[in-house]
Amino acid sequence: MVRENEIRPSEVAVEPPPATDAGLVFIGRIYSPWTSRLKAPRQGRQDGPLCRIEIFDPWVPALDGIGRFERLEVLYWLHLSRRDLVRQSPANDGSARGTFALRSPVRPNPIGTSIVSLVEVNGPVLLVRGLDCLDGTPLLDLKPDRTLFTPIAPPQPGDFETGD
Amino acid sequence: MVRENEIRPSEVAVEPPPATDAGLVFIGRIYSPWTSRLKAPRQGRQDGPLCRIEIFDPWVPALDGIGRFERLEVLYWLHLSRRDLVRQSPANDGSARGTFALRSPVRPNPIGTSIVSLVEVNGPVLLVRGLDCLDGTPLLDLKPDRTLFTPIAPPQPGDFETGD
Repeated sequence: MVRENEIRPSEVAVEPPPATDAGLVFIGRIYSPWTSRLKAPRQGRQDGPLCRIEIFDPWVPALDGIGRFERLEVLYWLHLSRRDLVRQSPANDGSARGTFALRSPVRPNPIGTSIVSLVEVNGPVLLVRGLDCLDGTPLLDLKPDRTLFTPIAPPQPGDFETGD
Repeated sequence: MVRENEIRPSEVAVEPPPATDAGLVFIGRIYSPWTSRLKAPRQGRQDGPLCRIEIFDPWVPALDGIGRFERLEVLYWLHLSRRDLVRQSPANDGSARGTFALRSPVRPNPIGTSIVSLVEVNGPVLLVRGLDCLDGTPLLDLKPDRTLFTPIAPPQPGDFETGD
């Protein structure tokens, strides 16, 4: 979002509760070509530039087997985002929409999610395409893309429940 | 994952750093039919049972406009999960795989993500299908499904960058 942290006309901020319900650990860092919010893409693209993800200790062994997935879901912490807007005006045109009807980085819990193409795994470093985040963004999680993953554990009753 | 918090043969735990790099606020709660880890599905299904999502104050105005999206991405906090396993054995068969090559709830940052079908919005309450989480799970975020969302803000240079 191209703003230093000002509020635009028609936007609504709230006094948020303290963000102490649960705590996060940064498990790595994302290196992208974008060092300015004025340049970063609004959305990643699968043919976008290579980005590097570096995993920190002690989490490197958790990468074992990740190379078998062509696409990954990446969760990251949008560390520059304000967290108190409930209505936002992305076009800055006097109209606003609720935060949960937008994929803006400004959210009560500023967690970004992207689906990336996995190009290479080399020790603690992954090369991927499809990210949209700023250089230096803290990493929260990596998962296989949901559409490529079949649970290894045996099914449970809930797997067969349908209807109301 | 069907375990009280025991470690299985071939699994590897680490001493994790304190989870204090960033803080989360629970913005709502999820009500599902599953009160036991022995019953919950391994993965949600779009024809699964209705689940209720209740949004807490002061975030309710952030729902404005969400009804236009047929599917939402839901982020939630897997509050019962241990966070220290780097290798896991979902089948409990002596084989293990890295946590980032699994969609297990056991992760350094236990954040679950699902794509749900939005059935109804009624004030602070949403009815959805497609969740897999336990009754009472804390909610972290709601976003339009990425495949349904077009940014409202004007494009930036990064939106046109491809290649290396």
